[in-house]
Amino acid sequence: MSTPTIATAKEIFDLLHDDLLEIEREFETAAVSRVQVITEIAEYLREGGGKRIRPLLLLLSARSQSYRGAGATRLGAVVEMVHTATLVHDDIIDAADMRRGRPSPNTTWGNAKCVLAGDWLYMQAFRVALDERNFRVLDLLIGLTQQMVEGELMQLETLGRQVNSQEYYDLIYRKTACLFEVSMRLGAVLAKATDAEEECMGEYGRNLGLAFQIVDDVLDLTATEEVLGKPVASDLREGKATMAVIHALENGGAEERAAILTVLEDQNFERVSHDQILAALKRNGSVEYAMNTAFEYAEAARQALSFLPESDYKRALLWVPDYVVAREK
Amino acid sequence: MSTPTIATAKEIFDLLHDDLLEIEREFETAAVSRVQVITEIAEYLREGGGKRIRPLLLLLSARSQSYRGAGATRLGAVVEMVHTATLVHDDIIDAADMRRGRPSPNTTWGNAKCVLAGDWLYMQAFRVALDERNFRVLDLLIGLTQQMVEGELMQLETLGRQVNSQEYYDLIYRKTACLFEVSMRLGAVLAKATDAEEECMGEYGRNLGLAFQIVDDVLDLTATEEVLGKPVASDLREGKATMAVIHALENGGAEERAAILTVLEDQNFERVSHDQILAALKRNGSVEYAMNTAFEYAEAARQALSFLPESDYKRALLWVPDYVVAREK
Repeated sequence: MSTPTIATAKEIFDLLHDDLLEIEREFETAAVSRVQVITEIAEYLREGGGKRIRPLLLLLSARSQSYRGAGATRLGAVVEMVHTATLVHDDIIDAADMRRGRPSPNTTWGNAKCVLAGDWLYMQAFRVALDERNFRVLDLLIGLTQQMVEGELMQLETLGRQVNSQEYYDLIYRKTACLFEVSMRLGAVLAKATDAEEECMGEYGRNLGLAFQIVDDVLDLTATEEVLGKPVASDLREGKATMAVIHALENGGAEERAAILTVLEDQNFERVSHDQILAALKRNGSVEYAMNTAFEYAEAARQALSFLPESDYKRALLWVPDYVVAREK
Repeated sequence: MSTPTIATAKEIFDLLHDDLLEIEREFETAAVSRVQVITEIAEYLREGGGKRIRPLLLLLSARSQSYRGAGATRLGAVVEMVHTATLVHDDIIDAADMRRGRPSPNTTWGNAKCVLAGDWLYMQAFRVALDERNFRVLDLLIGLTQQMVEGELMQLETLGRQVNSQEYYDLIYRKTACLFEVSMRLGAVLAKATDAEEECMGEYGRNLGLAFQIVDDVLDLTATEEVLGKPVASDLREGKATMAVIHALENGGAEERAAILTVLEDQNFERVSHDQILAALKRNGSVEYAMNTAFEYAEAARQALSFLPESDYKRALLWVPDYVVAREK
């Protein structure tokens, strides 16, 4: 009897049920500080949820390569903490009001405390990772976090202007794909995989992360505020051009181009409406173009797993790219 | 022939000349990022100088215990980078205009970029430290940085109100003494000192750090803007009560007490003048009290070194507390 290639969401949840619970426990335990306000902010962020996709990847990577130890849930909590720390600082930088349908922490606690709470979460993530007593784990994590921070700064430098595709790839690699890649690599490191195997796992994570962020950026343009939990088109409101917008800029007429550049420059929809932008994207097939690119990355992610022996974990990994490109928020 | 107990500043500079140059080189090399603005901010901060007292302590600790390797200059650069990262974030939090007689980085580059530049410097410090391939080094550094971040948050929670001596000690321990202690401990770790020896080195650093910060806080009250490179009494303007002020609050009359609490609450000298505060401190001998406490810590630091064999490095360590309490900025 051959195993079906793709699992279902329920199967994956059942498969990883105990591990995911353990990750929540680890995160909860680690997010406690002697300083009350740190615990409050960390708890607020932890409770706010999120898809926990990075720990899921790390778990699946480790388990699909036969690692059975406790390091996978520990490092699962670590990558989610790193992710959470970046969100705290990003919300300060973007002066965001909302995050996952709730007020962003900076609106409740102010920037000063959130700068420090973010610092603390980074340190705490490294501290928990240090318990693994594995230099390779620390090399990956610290190198990664730097790349993410650099990416945020590069993003700041591009606000309000057109970016080309190459810049966009570099930005979304640093913003998202990089942590997906490292999560997969960490699973491989725990499983003592060969360099070539770790490379394949990294490639899966990188491609999946690119697909994830392209879809995220499309949803920001096309979904509703209710579904997103934050205002629509917030990227454009912050002066950020994402894939579909870049496609329309590169392929649209002079008028469409001017309209988009106006919004990027103004960072609001006062002179050009959100509907005008959506119409321009539609006329140029820009959303379809972005989604097709995401599908290609999703497929490339799946291809990278060909070396893996069959298992329920591999089936789960094959399912994740589908989930990522089909999700609605 | 017995060695004199105390060295001079010139002797110490000659003794550590090459090491200190090497630390500058390491810091300069490490402060380069692919992202231009990070390099600019890091370079601005590095060039701004500072006393480099933390690397000096680390060097003296390692060398006085016969460590001769390159780890001392590498970790010297690391502790200075950690210190620099905390300054970048602190200036954002305090909304500071000036730092070491120049505009603080947040006034030039804005808060958003400085949050990220501070993050990057922390990561870079850990990254360089990771090259040492010593878990104990990483445990100390990461534990320390968390304590410092927690201290800053505790400080924020106390702004505008009276703190007691116990709170003040905890705050200055976290703000300053903690990194001095870790610098000394790192030197001991490099030298493969016994736990007891590392403990003594840590005690030296802790006591020296407390003396250093008490003097720093006194200078903030009594020195001139020209000497400080920033406005006088900036602690009071930020609502921070330091040792001399706490002494006056605990020992002064009702009127003096009310005047000080007014300034702490207002965070300005509009209703009560700076001279009135200085007069209250003078009447209560509060500055003398704080300076005497600093002298006691400086002496306790020296006492902690009794186990060390005689050497030029030990003589230098015996000199540092004198320098710290006698300095004018």
